[in-house]
Amino acid sequence: MEILDKSKILDLLKGLNLESLISEGFIAYSNKLTVIPPVGELLFENPPGDVHIKYGYIRNEKYYVIKLASGFPNNQDLGLTNSQGMMLLFEQKTGVPVSILLDDGYLTDIRTAVAGQICAKVLSNRIDTIGIIGTGIQARLQLQYLRDITTCRDVLVWGRNVEHSKDFQSKMKEYGFNVSISSSVHNLSSKSNLIILATSSSEPLLFKEDLKPGTHITAIGADTHLKREIGPGVLKQASIVITDSLKQCIDRGEISHALKEDSIIRENIVELGKILDLSHPGRTKKEEITIADLTGVAVQDLKIAGGIFEKYLGRKNEF
Amino acid sequence: MEILDKSKILDLLKGLNLESLISEGFIAYSNKLTVIPPVGELLFENPPGDVHIKYGYIRNEKYYVIKLASGFPNNQDLGLTNSQGMMLLFEQKTGVPVSILLDDGYLTDIRTAVAGQICAKVLSNRIDTIGIIGTGIQARLQLQYLRDITTCRDVLVWGRNVEHSKDFQSKMKEYGFNVSISSSVHNLSSKSNLIILATSSSEPLLFKEDLKPGTHITAIGADTHLKREIGPGVLKQASIVITDSLKQCIDRGEISHALKEDSIIRENIVELGKILDLSHPGRTKKEEITIADLTGVAVQDLKIAGGIFEKYLGRKNEF
Repeated sequence: MEILDKSKILDLLKGLNLESLISEGFIAYSNKLTVIPPVGELLFENPPGDVHIKYGYIRNEKYYVIKLASGFPNNQDLGLTNSQGMMLLFEQKTGVPVSILLDDGYLTDIRTAVAGQICAKVLSNRIDTIGIIGTGIQARLQLQYLRDITTCRDVLVWGRNVEHSKDFQSKMKEYGFNVSISSSVHNLSSKSNLIILATSSSEPLLFKEDLKPGTHITAIGADTHLKREIGPGVLKQASIVITDSLKQCIDRGEISHALKEDSIIRENIVELGKILDLSHPGRTKKEEITIADLTGVAVQDLKIAGGIFEKYLGRKNEF
Repeated sequence: MEILDKSKILDLLKGLNLESLISEGFIAYSNKLTVIPPVGELLFENPPGDVHIKYGYIRNEKYYVIKLASGFPNNQDLGLTNSQGMMLLFEQKTGVPVSILLDDGYLTDIRTAVAGQICAKVLSNRIDTIGIIGTGIQARLQLQYLRDITTCRDVLVWGRNVEHSKDFQSKMKEYGFNVSISSSVHNLSSKSNLIILATSSSEPLLFKEDLKPGTHITAIGADTHLKREIGPGVLKQASIVITDSLKQCIDRGEISHALKEDSIIRENIVELGKILDLSHPGRTKKEEITIADLTGVAVQDLKIAGGIFEKYLGRKNEF
């Protein structure tokens, strides 16, 4: 069994075609080629924290994955990162462990950013201004990964903490983006035709009044029962609402809230894999509003961990 | 983070007071000091296999555990052991991983044997003959761990395969047991006052007609919805039916079958931790039949992994 540390993982990530790997994963998932049980969840109160266990496999492939990811928001007071985690790969035919990827939760961040990239690529109109709501690691990665699918470098950012927004601005400059700090979500959304929400908010930030024809919105932050970034009635305005998992979005994320409020047209909910395999046309008119709500599926973990491990096997003698 | 391989684990196991550790775990569990979500399960069809994820923690202790264990019955054709697995320990206050115990499923076997040992110790009459149904690794470990709690060395064994029974006989001789091979479960149970069932059977092996006053029976094998070792009506004959987890036994194991068949007196079901902390008297009369049905709880994994890791920390400079 191979134990890969973070430096090896970062090295192996270079040049890996994640868009293609993760797209394959979503397509397999939406075509029911996967076995993915409900997410396991372990909660802590004092200090607060949560652990998610995502696991599963694509039938007749080589591996299955078990991904362990935790979030302990008070860690930063101790000088530790909030997210911790690892991915474990096993042989599908024997259960023999083949690799432990000690990524400290980084691969979860990356595969989430890639899912956002894929949604922006297949659902946006030609991007003229990118609006980013949130200033943390996932907000940054979302923007970084957009570089590969658009030439647009004009960005508006909004965050609760102006200092964090300034920090975001300067960091993203290094990646070639011209970032302006927006005074409000409404201001940001009136000027952007691609909006990414990547916060850990439990209160809506984007409302019906903020919507503009032709916009694509991707909501990344809400991955539990409690988190929420999008206000009541917003999803009803979208011609299609894209989810990474129909099964999962009933329980968690934006769609779960809209279903409870009966403010979504159920027929408009489409699984991402169905757009990627072209069995659903996706956006058909320029003026449509499209919204993607991503809660993260084990098939993404499987694909990124498998991709890194296969690459490692091919380059083993270099390490 | 410390990665402990199997040879280190075997070394650290020596002299560890597992009976006391695991008993503490059961007591904490039955006194609702633990957070233990439902078991995660990943199933495979071709070849058949299953993976169980057991996880949880005792509030205000140091660690939480995530235990991964698989069973792929066709592995033996490939020269591999059927069980694979590992235990992972994390800090309860931060989610930081502290240790990966690469035990290949061995610690699961051990903590299961210790649970059997504990049941035999607190529920049996003075043991005169031990009956073991099953000849595999768990059957052997159950017997080995009885050495510490009884001077009885007279054993009857029954298995489907006579060659395996002979193998069991010679291996257990090394541990000082005089093993006779029994021609039937009925014969075995008529002569034993402690019976351990440790098979992977999905059909009952021990029936109502096999019961004898004063016997204690521990059923270890049935840990899923499908497995079963004890026939209809047997549990109804017991003055108490002991389970490691009231919550879990509703879904899996012998009690789940008896509940479906309405052939158990619900008030007679007692959690092991309640007997260990003396809030339930356990066996009160010599002639009573007592039956323990164990499906395995994460608190056992937590206790054995934590015990080994703490011992490792104290002896780190030796390795």
